[in-house]
Amino acid sequence: MNSAQSGVALESLRLPEDPQALAELSARLMYDNDPATQGLGISLIEVTPGCARMQMTVRPDMLNGHRTCHGGFIFTLADSTFAFACNSRNQATVASGCTIDFLAPGLLGDVLTADASEASLAGRTGVYDILVTNQDGKRIALFRGRSYRIKGTVVEEAMRANFEVVAGDGNV
Amino acid sequence: MNSAQSGVALESLRLPEDPQALAELSARLMYDNDPATQGLGISLIEVTPGCARMQMTVRPDMLNGHRTCHGGFIFTLADSTFAFACNSRNQATVASGCTIDFLAPGLLGDVLTADASEASLAGRTGVYDILVTNQDGKRIALFRGRSYRIKGTVVEEAMRANFEVVAGDGNV
Amino acid sequence: MNSAQSGVALESLRLPEDPQALAELSARLMYDNDPATQGLGISLIEVTPGCARMQMTVRPDMLNGHRTCHGGFIFTLADSTFAFACNSRNQATVASGCTIDFLAPGLLGDVLTADASEASLAGRTGVYDILVTNQDGKRIALFRGRSYRIKGTVVEEAMRANFEVVAGDGNV
Amino acid sequence: MNSAQSGVALESLRLPEDPQALAELSARLMYDNDPATQGLGISLIEVTPGCARMQMTVRPDMLNGHRTCHGGFIFTLADSTFAFACNSRNQATVASGCTIDFLAPGLLGDVLTADASEASLAGRTGVYDILVTNQDGKRIALFRGRSYRIKGTVVEEAMRANFEVVAGDGNV
Repeated sequence: MNSAQSGVALESLRLPEDPQALAELSARLMYDNDPATQGLGISLIEVTPGCARMQMTVRPDMLNGHRTCHGGFIFTLADSTFAFACNSRNQATVASGCTIDFLAPGLLGDVLTADASEASLAGRTGVYDILVTNQDGKRIALFRGRSYRIKGTVVEEAMRANFEVVAGDGNV
Repeated sequence: MNSAQSGVALESLRLPEDPQALAELSARLMYDNDPATQGLGISLIEVTPGCARMQMTVRPDMLNGHRTCHGGFIFTLADSTFAFACNSRNQATVASGCTIDFLAPGLLGDVLTADASEASLAGRTGVYDILVTNQDGKRIALFRGRSYRIKGTVVEEAMRANFEVVAGDGNV
Repeated sequence: MNSAQSGVALESLRLPEDPQALAELSARLMYDNDPATQGLGISLIEVTPGCARMQMTVRPDMLNGHRTCHGGFIFTLADSTFAFACNSRNQATVASGCTIDFLAPGLLGDVLTADASEASLAGRTGVYDILVTNQDGKRIALFRGRSYRIKGTVVEEAMRANFEVVAGDGNV
Repeated sequence: MNSAQSGVALESLRLPEDPQALAELSARLMYDNDPATQGLGISLIEVTPGCARMQMTVRPDMLNGHRTCHGGFIFTLADSTFAFACNSRNQATVASGCTIDFLAPGLLGDVLTADASEASLAGRTGVYDILVTNQDGKRIALFRGRSYRIKGTVVEEAMRANFEVVAGDGNV
């Protein structure tokens, strides 16, 4: 569940120079420290610099009163994929604002795939488009996220989180 | 968890004429049939025609890699509150699109309150504004949702869901 | 400026069955009756079913206090292109909501091109993505519009507008 | 049309310490250097720190093919009001992204009023809500803008623009 358990000795990390290797390292460390994404059963299918693909199966506890997937979980899948895409260059980045258009309902058991791609990156802000489809390729939602780069790197954040867990004062 | 268990004999329901009583009935039936909202520990504080207030405490399984509440759960709280507000007149209504601006992080243990109010309702479409604050009154997020009225009523949907559960073929 | 002057005898129109011909007819009639789009010097480059491309040159009267193109005119270019795309099937359609992200400024004399494509069309609602670029291919803005189909057709609307002008009781 | 003509001797300006006086000075200088806002006949009714109110009458050249005010001009009115609100503290600020929901059409001759208020301001980013109503108080549109503070001040920008005009190399 955390970096220590997954066997990554962060103290001795030498950052890879290859952008693809860096994207994969950032994504692995982020995922290891992200209880929300893990808890929803979201899996990371692929990450490249600026892009990510994740999947989630609609569970009974994700249904709303209309017997369809609560829009919040579709949003969460898209938002996680957005986060993995915009943090893929090892620069800590957060979402400042997002829009989502719901096109068709997600149903119990549906396997939803979110594809994030970078539409713009200039200075500290970026814009990412995420398309959510179901197992038949049907479009479920369109998400657009605006990102804002903060201080620090993904690897540093993971090292800090890891240290807190080892030292017993983590907040998880 | 469902209407049968909560003791509402839907078959004999006479719909209240008072808008406030109708709002409360719609909300209670929706909540009883909404595993997603229940599973996140979201509680309904108040509902009036066109408005709703709900609360959620940030749990460890809602944290992301930055050690703050995953934006998806803040969105989900706001989206549920939006749903209870726009269904408060017993007309089945769904979200067509939403925007969210994240203003400050939610932290572990924070009690987040979402207040939804109706900004516009014309024909089948409405616009709702939802403000999310924490226990100190600090603004955490601004959400705006566009609603679209579909066929049917909240009470009818709940009756159908209830029948499915009693008949043993429900999907929950 | 209006259909009568442009020589289209609307009374005798037989609607083309070919979707492309219908898109071109709808666009021509819309453009003839759209003083706003004409007045900004926006030209229609291309229209196909669900898509449109338009161009606008940034004029001195479009500049704001930062000496860049006022975002409102970039929005207007994108919004017009959106309108021509979503009305291209001769079904009268209006915008219900739009989002725009500004990526880079438009400068005096820049030739801005907006490309609209249909991301979704289901029932009476659609979602369209519009990309605005300058003469160097640089991305200036991303626009996403939600459309809502109303009663009537583009051709009928144009006929009505045309009749009003001929009869002398038009409101232009 | 520019600061020189309006008689403000920018070189000798002492910035007022009173926030309200500073807001009014910033607004006056911005307006003097904003051909777009002037050209649409938009008038500034009131400005206070973080807030602004502007008005625009729907002209024939603002109508679209539906014989209603082109959404782009409603957006532009709201966007200008947003700009005057978020620049009211004399810190140069631009829009990064906006959303608009169209609630009712604007008609020829309608007097539209836009009221902007500050929903959030933290660090370099802010969120502003703008409500557009007509002369009967009917809600025409809801606009939400995200602002981003850049380098410089409104007064400095106006001085620079003023100098360019005097020196004969201005671009207006």
